[in-house]
Amino acid sequence: MDLSALDAAVEAALPAALDELAELVAIPTVAAKPDSPMREGAEAVARLFEKRGFLAKLSDTDGAGPSCARPPVVYAEDRTAGVDAPTALLYNHYDVQPAEPLDLWNSDPWKLTQSGDFLFGRGVSDDKGHIICRLMAIDALKKTFGALPVNLKALVEGEEEVASTHLEGWMQKNAALLNADVTLWEFGGVDESGRPELLCGLRGIAYFELSVKSIAYDAHSGVGGSIFPNAAWRLVWALATLKSPDEKIQLPGHYDALKPFTEADKQMLAGLPDTEEAHWKKEMGLDAFLGGATGAEWHRRQAFEPTCTICGLTSGWQGTGSKTVMPAEASAKVDFRLVPDQTPEQVEKSLRTHLDSQGFPDVQLKLLGGQKPGRISPDHPLVQLAAKTAEEVYGVAPAVWPLSPVTGPIHPFVVGLGQPIATIGCGYPGSRVHAPGENLKISNLLDGAKHTARYLYALAQRPHSPT
Amino acid sequence: MDLSALDAAVEAALPAALDELAELVAIPTVAAKPDSPMREGAEAVARLFEKRGFLAKLSDTDGAGPSCARPPVVYAEDRTAGVDAPTALLYNHYDVQPAEPLDLWNSDPWKLTQSGDFLFGRGVSDDKGHIICRLMAIDALKKTFGALPVNLKALVEGEEEVASTHLEGWMQKNAALLNADVTLWEFGGVDESGRPELLCGLRGIAYFELSVKSIAYDAHSGVGGSIFPNAAWRLVWALATLKSPDEKIQLPGHYDALKPFTEADKQMLAGLPDTEEAHWKKEMGLDAFLGGATGAEWHRRQAFEPTCTICGLTSGWQGTGSKTVMPAEASAKVDFRLVPDQTPEQVEKSLRTHLDSQGFPDVQLKLLGGQKPGRISPDHPLVQLAAKTAEEVYGVAPAVWPLSPVTGPIHPFVVGLGQPIATIGCGYPGSRVHAPGENLKISNLLDGAKHTARYLYALAQRPHSPT
Repeated sequence: MDLSALDAAVEAALPAALDELAELVAIPTVAAKPDSPMREGAEAVARLFEKRGFLAKLSDTDGAGPSCARPPVVYAEDRTAGVDAPTALLYNHYDVQPAEPLDLWNSDPWKLTQSGDFLFGRGVSDDKGHIICRLMAIDALKKTFGALPVNLKALVEGEEEVASTHLEGWMQKNAALLNADVTLWEFGGVDESGRPELLCGLRGIAYFELSVKSIAYDAHSGVGGSIFPNAAWRLVWALATLKSPDEKIQLPGHYDALKPFTEADKQMLAGLPDTEEAHWKKEMGLDAFLGGATGAEWHRRQAFEPTCTICGLTSGWQGTGSKTVMPAEASAKVDFRLVPDQTPEQVEKSLRTHLDSQGFPDVQLKLLGGQKPGRISPDHPLVQLAAKTAEEVYGVAPAVWPLSPVTGPIHPFVVGLGQPIATIGCGYPGSRVHAPGENLKISNLLDGAKHTARYLYALAQRPHSPT
Repeated sequence: MDLSALDAAVEAALPAALDELAELVAIPTVAAKPDSPMREGAEAVARLFEKRGFLAKLSDTDGAGPSCARPPVVYAEDRTAGVDAPTALLYNHYDVQPAEPLDLWNSDPWKLTQSGDFLFGRGVSDDKGHIICRLMAIDALKKTFGALPVNLKALVEGEEEVASTHLEGWMQKNAALLNADVTLWEFGGVDESGRPELLCGLRGIAYFELSVKSIAYDAHSGVGGSIFPNAAWRLVWALATLKSPDEKIQLPGHYDALKPFTEADKQMLAGLPDTEEAHWKKEMGLDAFLGGATGAEWHRRQAFEPTCTICGLTSGWQGTGSKTVMPAEASAKVDFRLVPDQTPEQVEKSLRTHLDSQGFPDVQLKLLGGQKPGRISPDHPLVQLAAKTAEEVYGVAPAVWPLSPVTGPIHPFVVGLGQPIATIGCGYPGSRVHAPGENLKISNLLDGAKHTARYLYALAQRPHSPT
């Protein structure tokens, strides 16, 4: 069938959609900051779905602390397609990263700013632009066919940028509500060359704070150097036991939970483009990557290697010049990226055991956030369907990634709900998500909405057993 | 001779002296901070000497950089005792350590605050209180005898807390001016039991900044963890090669320059009290010292062991909660205490060689300050004179330490000028120098001033060859 009318309807939806995006960007929904207007952001998103005939509600998450202070989940649905039609779950988030450092922005991060094909603002890509992208597809489908060809359920959370702390619990309690054939993941898009990408998994994470207090207060380094335990030294020695300079993580059994690297994985990696290497070398000013990795090995590391990253260190005197002080306290932030089937709980346990066995019972450990990794098969028919419809829009078959190096709450979807995911969206590598100057290309927004609309239409054409 | 009139004159000098101390404490002469009012501090000190009839001048130090930005040396002298009288050189400093962390002070660090016998404020002991202590002795000598019985030269520098960077050069250029029989060192005082202490040497120091820049800017830890070099990891691994958890410094040949530990050293250590151990255990909340050191071994470590202390660490995300960032930069402040005959230059050289040989040519090294260690014989007659006059004031013979664990620019005095030092002052172990809550006991200030006055009087009674 000729779907050019659907594409045209997407393009017609753009002007109103940009107004709606401006409205969302203007609400600084920074989940990491306690006083952010999270409920206001949630209400704005709910209104956008209600405007389109969805039933929508805000739902508090469970957990410790007063629930009124926690960002609510937005749930919305349109089941007018009926029990004989397939259902797609749209997963997105309305929270954003902090905009700091503000002086590196060329525009107000909380005001949608257009310059040619580019839109600037915090969340314009991650993830408010993706919410709008889906609303444009919904508008186009309704305009073209008079009604939605599939049932749609939207789950829009407000804690994605703070490790989706309460999402899994909420999803477990509301599993019946979330039943669907496929989840459209919160992001998707194209690579540096404009080729679409499909991700078949995400690494997990376990994010820790390690801290030491060795003496009552900071001491004179002359007096203390020979006789007092030094918190900074204790921390450095403890950290040095976690990973060796060859990048091997030294926690006993850390690699035991890894699923075997298969011939199919190898082939998938071999089929991936190498355009990102040049991009990152230039951006980061590097002559070579860790271990000289390139080509398939570069992709293997990004997808299948667990990591252990020091994200921060703090102790003692950090100003200019010298202060002869022995620090009483020291701490580090350490981020482990996990691959199937590692879990944050297992890493927490083995990290504690390892520190104790290495002689560091004095190093305190706090798990600040964790998410399990998750994968789906690239051969799943609804992933294949996303590949087919991508080719219709972009004119080229997508690159299919076995596991993305980044993290998201994939586990409660692919394992908890038992659904595949399709990463269909409007991002590109230059979008500077999490950084100053976050941007979205209007051309990518249009392509992402066309891909979404075509995917949902194609989904409706498939044989389906009533739920 | 009965010197009770001299003691009474010291006590009479107290009220005016406290006003003068308040004036000095109010000037935040933090040498480590570039915008500190160092010249204002120097001028205030010069005025205090001029008020007592000294000739005083501010003298710029030589060295790289604009000299106007560098703290001047205050030089003052009173030679009215004449060429037939002995001469003492008073060495002090008007600069102080930073007051941070400010929230751990119970009073404004820049306002002299009295509570019973205690005076609080940054520099109240180290070293502004010691300047005042000497001025009280001068006042008392003049009041009691009508004139100073000895010639006095005062050298008050403004960079002691930043390793006296330019002092040695200035002293070499002004060696003729500094000729004296003895230097009264910038500090002295009593131990926990109230027994006076004399130090016959000071450890040296080499203070470094180690820094790494691994990528152009902070990266997303998911994207970078497997492929970008991490500045924080590079720093941690490099630091861990410098000293092992058993406190042994791993720089090749680091212990080779050490003078043999002699029987005389051993006997001197055996004669030292062990009261400091209980004091520091209580202050620092410790069950045991490093390596379980106690008794003579505790004293040996404090005096004769070189140290390697991490004074500060900084990298990446240091706020609350989690930020999944891979740091582009990391740095550490590291302080090596040196014992005779180690030198900062030798440590700098071997540290660079070591880092390179361990695979860390990317770790940049900057020597922020260095001082050579120095010792004098405890049998020197002017040290013995300090012991004798101490016993007059305190009623007990002083503990004589071969080498203090702390550092000062002793080398240009005992080697450069060839003078002995006498450590006569008003400190005590609870004074929290360099820490929040720095304090001085008024009773110690009075005793220190009495000791100073009696020492200078006794010095005048000794046979002397005209200079």
